[in-house]
Amino acid sequence: MTYELYYWTGIQGRGEYVRLALEAAGAPYRDVAREKGDDVIGKVTEEMATPSFAPPFLRDGEVVVGQVAAILLYLGDKLDLAPKDPKLRLWTHQIQLTIADFVLEGHDVHHPIGAGEYYENQKPEALRRAREFRSARVPKFLDWFERILERNEQSSEHLVGKDLSYADLSLFQVMDGLTYAFPKLIDDLYGDYPKIKAVCAVVAGHPRIRAYLESERRLAHNESDLFRHYPELDAEA
Amino acid sequence: MTYELYYWTGIQGRGEYVRLALEAAGAPYRDVAREKGDDVIGKVTEEMATPSFAPPFLRDGEVVVGQVAAILLYLGDKLDLAPKDPKLRLWTHQIQLTIADFVLEGHDVHHPIGAGEYYENQKPEALRRAREFRSARVPKFLDWFERILERNEQSSEHLVGKDLSYADLSLFQVMDGLTYAFPKLIDDLYGDYPKIKAVCAVVAGHPRIRAYLESERRLAHNESDLFRHYPELDAEA
Repeated sequence: MTYELYYWTGIQGRGEYVRLALEAAGAPYRDVAREKGDDVIGKVTEEMATPSFAPPFLRDGEVVVGQVAAILLYLGDKLDLAPKDPKLRLWTHQIQLTIADFVLEGHDVHHPIGAGEYYENQKPEALRRAREFRSARVPKFLDWFERILERNEQSSEHLVGKDLSYADLSLFQVMDGLTYAFPKLIDDLYGDYPKIKAVCAVVAGHPRIRAYLESERRLAHNESDLFRHYPELDAEA
Repeated sequence: MTYELYYWTGIQGRGEYVRLALEAAGAPYRDVAREKGDDVIGKVTEEMATPSFAPPFLRDGEVVVGQVAAILLYLGDKLDLAPKDPKLRLWTHQIQLTIADFVLEGHDVHHPIGAGEYYENQKPEALRRAREFRSARVPKFLDWFERILERNEQSSEHLVGKDLSYADLSLFQVMDGLTYAFPKLIDDLYGDYPKIKAVCAVVAGHPRIRAYLESERRLAHNESDLFRHYPELDAEA
């Protein structure tokens, strides 16, 4: 069965968290809007009994599921990217939900007044919000990831259990986005988080992920994406 | 088994989405911080193998789970507040995740620059963000809830299937918060959303929920909570 992913073209965005899971598992999938254009998303949504509020959503035969964390909860079981133990499976999901919160905050740094207005029209507000994001929020999230890695007795290179999970893939993706958007900040901070770094190295070195990252399917970061490199929002030199 | 809920005292907050599920099911639970003070949250977190990034979290014997949507995913099965059918169970969770996004946007209206600064220090920014929230975001979310209610062929009073689910309880809670925070806006809009209104009426009339809402356990809304009544952020008369 070929999975169908529906997500906006032109950016990694939230779709990328789903792509990384599909790619890591070597699962066959179509990136439907990249084939047919963004309009297909609205058309398909209009006809669905369970329309997603927003993309991404995934179709797997009769199953349609939206919201990244719910998609990964579903794929984690299907693609063997989450522990079988129900407690650890739930913990993996809890981590993913926290990553989703982090991603949203990473976006809202450059759009504190709302996604409906251009960045250029909310730049002073973004500068203020970026200060708190850099000084308080990023360290708080990274401290938490490092702490839960320290407490995982089964592995020093995986967030949950002893094997790769979708949470590892998503941590890689958020760190990759942060490093693109806030290179100075991450350069300052990253030395304090060796375990996060180890997880990201394992993901980047995973043969199928490495092949994906080098492929044309992996789009470059850009300033229409969730994580944007606006140098004025980054730490000072 | 008595559930243990850990959440800040003094507000409904995100804990309330969990409380409503426990109350609707008549499940025995302790609201631990209300017994022992807020300090217990940090102490318990410090000792946990799977510490939550933030409250609420729930302990059920050996199981500890944080993040509202994950807690409700867990409780939905245990308390019979979600369909058994896996597709509908996942759909219920997807709706809950969308409600979580809505709740966060409801909070960020009064804290667009970040939770680390007082509202009084980000009032002009909040006024700007509130305009987009009122004119675009609230209608977009309410349109979506109304639409998925229209598409539920099994019931006109429940979001999923034919029975009460935690998603119904959460929709009630978010509408209750919105009505408190933005009374003029909701007064203007609510006539367009008869199905949302019907779900909320069913929840409010549920015997155990009604008893809970009249009890001392149900705290009043206040300006330390997620939804705050700042008249200047509401629609104009």
